[in-house]
Amino acid sequence: MRAGPSQDEIRRQNLGALLRLVHLRGAMSRAELTTRLGLNRSTIGALTADLTSAGLVTERAPRETGRAGRPSLVVSPSSERAYAYAISIEVDQLRAARVGLGGVVLDRRRAARPPGRTGVAAVQPVAGFVAEMHAAATGGTRCIGSGVAVGGRVRAAEGAIELSAGAAELDAPLRAALGAALRDDRPVTVAAAADLAALAEHARGVAAGCDTVLYLHGDAGITAGVIAGGRRVTGAGGYGGEVGHMVVRPGGRRCSCGSAGCWETEIGEHALLRAAGGRGGAGRPAVLALVDAASRGDAAAQLAVRQVGDWLGFGVANLVNIFNPEMVIFGGMLREIYLAAAASVRSRLRLMVLPGWRGRLRLRTPALGDDAALIGAAELAFERLLADPLDAGAA
Amino acid sequence: MRAGPSQDEIRRQNLGALLRLVHLRGAMSRAELTTRLGLNRSTIGALTADLTSAGLVTERAPRETGRAGRPSLVVSPSSERAYAYAISIEVDQLRAARVGLGGVVLDRRRAARPPGRTGVAAVQPVAGFVAEMHAAATGGTRCIGSGVAVGGRVRAAEGAIELSAGAAELDAPLRAALGAALRDDRPVTVAAAADLAALAEHARGVAAGCDTVLYLHGDAGITAGVIAGGRRVTGAGGYGGEVGHMVVRPGGRRCSCGSAGCWETEIGEHALLRAAGGRGGAGRPAVLALVDAASRGDAAAQLAVRQVGDWLGFGVANLVNIFNPEMVIFGGMLREIYLAAAASVRSRLRLMVLPGWRGRLRLRTPALGDDAALIGAAELAFERLLADPLDAGAA
Repeated sequence: MRAGPSQDEIRRQNLGALLRLVHLRGAMSRAELTTRLGLNRSTIGALTADLTSAGLVTERAPRETGRAGRPSLVVSPSSERAYAYAISIEVDQLRAARVGLGGVVLDRRRAARPPGRTGVAAVQPVAGFVAEMHAAATGGTRCIGSGVAVGGRVRAAEGAIELSAGAAELDAPLRAALGAALRDDRPVTVAAAADLAALAEHARGVAAGCDTVLYLHGDAGITAGVIAGGRRVTGAGGYGGEVGHMVVRPGGRRCSCGSAGCWETEIGEHALLRAAGGRGGAGRPAVLALVDAASRGDAAAQLAVRQVGDWLGFGVANLVNIFNPEMVIFGGMLREIYLAAAASVRSRLRLMVLPGWRGRLRLRTPALGDDAALIGAAELAFERLLADPLDAGAA
Repeated sequence: MRAGPSQDEIRRQNLGALLRLVHLRGAMSRAELTTRLGLNRSTIGALTADLTSAGLVTERAPRETGRAGRPSLVVSPSSERAYAYAISIEVDQLRAARVGLGGVVLDRRRAARPPGRTGVAAVQPVAGFVAEMHAAATGGTRCIGSGVAVGGRVRAAEGAIELSAGAAELDAPLRAALGAALRDDRPVTVAAAADLAALAEHARGVAAGCDTVLYLHGDAGITAGVIAGGRRVTGAGGYGGEVGHMVVRPGGRRCSCGSAGCWETEIGEHALLRAAGGRGGAGRPAVLALVDAASRGDAAAQLAVRQVGDWLGFGVANLVNIFNPEMVIFGGMLREIYLAAAASVRSRLRLMVLPGWRGRLRLRTPALGDDAALIGAAELAFERLLADPLDAGAA
């Protein structure tokens, strides 16, 4: 018969389950692995031996426990030896990191991204970062693959909003450039930044253990990543979550998408600066300066923060009624606005969210901070390894 | 080693895959099953023999094909022998059906539901229907279980919107009443009507083969069922999709939920009748009468239909930008409004939906008509059987 897994496939599944556990939860004793995985001690011993030979975990004796009996060995992910390259193509910057198994950032690079450049123009600089980090990595280490987070506005500029395929357009050039930099053809996987930030916060951040999560990312635009039933939810062709283009103010200000009154025209960076009387600057620094001014008592800045906070709460309330999440995470520039205007946001939620749904809803900022999408890109690259550690690990 | 399936479990998985295929796609030759399932001919023979003895499929010689060689036997689901009870608790009616494997409605009952009754008050009448149908079922037949679709407004009245647990509150009394009616303890599963309608249209209706689907159900309120990545998406505790409480008109009319300007205050049945100058009647008949008047040239009715159609398009555009579905299905009363006001709806979508996403979007009405949620309730009951045909089938 076909279909059903062989003994070897079962072993690979169990290897994946064990590796995923120490990758996400960190070092763990064999005794705890035995309990958590429901496998017996000798099986755990055989699996850790396999993963150790593949260079994916290490084992060591625990610190003195004071208890009688032979202590259980502690299994840790080999962060130094097995890693992924994570790349984040953002509105105003390019970032790349070498991220070890277990989610440890081993090395990182960053450059400003000149305004108006295409997404494809980012390919050579990030490939350069990867080549540098690859040269600096010591021998005996192994690259698993690369993951790329592409911001909403970058995708929009590439025609993603037109075609739902902007990130896919980056796929081939990124694969070629990274292949050249790494001198091989490790897999390159590309996804939307908000989706990957949601993935990372769900895997190892503030939303660990939550079943249904909405991650909102703000820069010039507003996008969302959704986890429902513990899984990433995307629309047709892997895209969705263009929540910035939900109309919240019929007949409102014209949006770059061609519509009017879109949420991002009321809560984006431009809306905030405009509400404060058109202060200079742009991007995250200008937002931070304005929020800082508000905290120091600048009345115009305070008004702008409250006004944008009110519209932020308005859109979040709609999304909560639609998705009924356990947690909403405010990332990117929305982190600053939420922290400065939490009272306005909560006041809107009290008015608009269905009564009983408010009780279980938690509002949070990312535990991984601005690294959420970058770490999510690494998680994307690790997925293949965790599905079949010996196949991906041994190659 | 644990975890991995045994030979017996593999056989059960394959039995489930075969049964699911004929349940959803109808009678199919052994040759086609062999191709579709990737199993060899002797395995298909063994599996159909098992399913035949369990009374779940039948085999017959095909009609004369004119081809040489021994013709391949045709495998059909035993719709008459294995069935589920499907129950739908709606705003204005109660329905129950005996639905055979393969989705065939074998028997059905219906009663008006007096306004203002609680959901729990529906339990005895539907249990009565089930007892009647059970008595009428011939010998040698087998009930697999029962599924219940609960409409959004029913849940709201039960406190579901408060507690996200309205349908759960129906669970125990329904189980007890149906257990008494059937004289056994077959499983009873309860879910939101829009979710089940989406499930049914995706399984065997207009959305078969679509990966990402939004089903909108309208009665007094508006709810949604979402399929993403081919799976049902629900929020915390299994609820979500309360899209009727997305605010589309800030500062608009007061809604029963406590907020103002909710989508359902602009497109619900009350909004439509109000827009036409407060005509008499209520419920689906009043909506049908108004749509009919519009088609006969009644100017006030035409204006009301256009106005509600415009707001319908407005909310759908927001949801399309959020979910990026391949298909939106208009069910319940929204079917009539969409058909009468498709031009207004499409005009709004052209203004508001992200340009490239419009191209792949299809707007449809339910292939299963008003039975979508009822058939979905049966699908819910069949899920357990399809997961493990011999276990659930033999009990």
